[in-house]
Amino acid sequence: MPKIDPHAIRQGDRLALSRALSAVENNEQAGQELQSFLFPFTGKAHLIGVTGASGVGKSTLVNQLAKALRQSRTEKDTPKIAIVAVDPTSPFTGGALLGDRIRMQDLAGDKGIFIRSMASRGALGGLAHKTAAFATILDGAGFDIVLIETVGAGQAEVDIAQLAHTVIVVEAPGMGDDIQAIKAGILEIADILVVNKADRPDAENTALALRAMLDMAHGGSLPVAGKHMRQNAKLPQTESHTVSDEWRPPVQLVTATKGKGVPQLVEEITHHRKYLLESGLWQVKEAHRLRRDLETLIRESLMDQWQKKVDVSKFESIMKDILDRKYAPIDAVKLLL
Amino acid sequence: MPKIDPHAIRQGDRLALSRALSAVENNEQAGQELQSFLFPFTGKAHLIGVTGASGVGKSTLVNQLAKALRQSRTEKDTPKIAIVAVDPTSPFTGGALLGDRIRMQDLAGDKGIFIRSMASRGALGGLAHKTAAFATILDGAGFDIVLIETVGAGQAEVDIAQLAHTVIVVEAPGMGDDIQAIKAGILEIADILVVNKADRPDAENTALALRAMLDMAHGGSLPVAGKHMRQNAKLPQTESHTVSDEWRPPVQLVTATKGKGVPQLVEEITHHRKYLLESGLWQVKEAHRLRRDLETLIRESLMDQWQKKVDVSKFESIMKDILDRKYAPIDAVKLLL
Repeated sequence: MPKIDPHAIRQGDRLALSRALSAVENNEQAGQELQSFLFPFTGKAHLIGVTGASGVGKSTLVNQLAKALRQSRTEKDTPKIAIVAVDPTSPFTGGALLGDRIRMQDLAGDKGIFIRSMASRGALGGLAHKTAAFATILDGAGFDIVLIETVGAGQAEVDIAQLAHTVIVVEAPGMGDDIQAIKAGILEIADILVVNKADRPDAENTALALRAMLDMAHGGSLPVAGKHMRQNAKLPQTESHTVSDEWRPPVQLVTATKGKGVPQLVEEITHHRKYLLESGLWQVKEAHRLRRDLETLIRESLMDQWQKKVDVSKFESIMKDILDRKYAPIDAVKLLL
Repeated sequence: MPKIDPHAIRQGDRLALSRALSAVENNEQAGQELQSFLFPFTGKAHLIGVTGASGVGKSTLVNQLAKALRQSRTEKDTPKIAIVAVDPTSPFTGGALLGDRIRMQDLAGDKGIFIRSMASRGALGGLAHKTAAFATILDGAGFDIVLIETVGAGQAEVDIAQLAHTVIVVEAPGMGDDIQAIKAGILEIADILVVNKADRPDAENTALALRAMLDMAHGGSLPVAGKHMRQNAKLPQTESHTVSDEWRPPVQLVTATKGKGVPQLVEEITHHRKYLLESGLWQVKEAHRLRRDLETLIRESLMDQWQKKVDVSKFESIMKDILDRKYAPIDAVKLLL
């Protein structure tokens, strides 16, 4: 494996970039070093999470969105866009690779769009960490927008909400039962709601239902992302803002297969970015994310240090006592530390 | 708030039990003390996870299952059953409470069944921890079977797989697109697959598709729960088994609303329990779970200790350097520890 040149990544070398992402994916030391090198160049990219259940048409939407973002942004001539598809499809179907190839064809010829899948098999707990590392490398490599597509559910939704500046939650019409169950999660993380497949007859009803839920949430006292993030942070906080509750997530009808509604979605994304920057929330989100990253790394380092010096035979004898139900794990901690 | 008597919980006092679970839910100190007291009495309950997307009919299935398990088990006269419904419905709809009330009516009059919802709002990362604490208290309170119902997706599936002895994954016919995306997760965690709503015309096709996937997985080299758990454990391992791959998850057609297929499902659960006990996997799973619990507690305690002695102004100045992109969080750890 040849050494990966971080300067080449900065200069737009796609092979070097691909290798860097693979190094991260495979937990290689080089991946860590590249993140350290590239970190000082980060903080510029707009990280956009696109999440929703499988089957709502996220991939098609993300492709259309990438094309539209390439054409419509005015502050830069041509923003460079990266797409990260966190794909839970098992590799034995070849789903991830096949998906990539179809996308390559669709977006072929545009050198300003970089596409990469991350297979989630085996990653599980480490998936959020790897997605964040991908974002660091792509940000440091000079991409202006990083679109991160994930199958949204449970912890994955929380993870993307903590990473992305803007979270787009995609729905399809006629979810029926589902809507009741998922709305709490949606309301907490969505900055923009999309009802895809808007050419279906019940699309308008789904949009109405979502808007009604948003009205209830924003009229009442439901937590929103900003609030929630503050509650979650454990270490002492330096920033404090009260503007986070002002954003009301728009509900956008889109027919991704025909590109319908996509320009309006781009406008809403631009609007949300402007809102974040002007309200100071962009900086608050960055601060929370980096603080959380640091906290996680400290926690892991402390555990590593402890594991190196722990008396293994003592640990195993205590473990046996727990298995024998002599005392609870919480009481064992007092014996070990 | 009156003190909760742990002996009353052991003697079957339901009010004391309810209070204990509330103490755990609200992170009260009493919840921790009760877990320590009850832990020596645990290790007897069969923890059964029931998971699947929303709308597949999990609640109805769990109710039917509880009734059937009450009647069919022969090793004990009448096993005591607890149902824990981890309910992601936002409290502003009253979903969790309403669900409880409907269930109470359905299972009313049976003193051997205890039902409790856990609203997941606000819990997020702590949900797995609280579910495990519920299991400890219910196990210690003398329940023979604890049915844990969760909306299955992403991290929640991994969590339930790590907690439960037996994981039942519930599908509904005609998932179509979804099946492609979720099968990897299912194959890793399911001990038993249920196709609910089996009176629908495409139920048999869904069952066939799931069986075909299982054939591929078990013929090939897809990870199964046992393997995966071993890879995930970080501390030194004492046990080693090679039998975990022998279990082939059955696919059971069920019409929960009519109770059809439920007795067969009970048989499969009993069969799986027998398999776990005879193969030694029951003990392996317990050991992994308790080891993981201990590891998590150690990690949190180390972090608590560190936070108490850290120089806050130094920490904040380093945090500022990170925000200014002077160096990466990973490099900051070296300065802090």
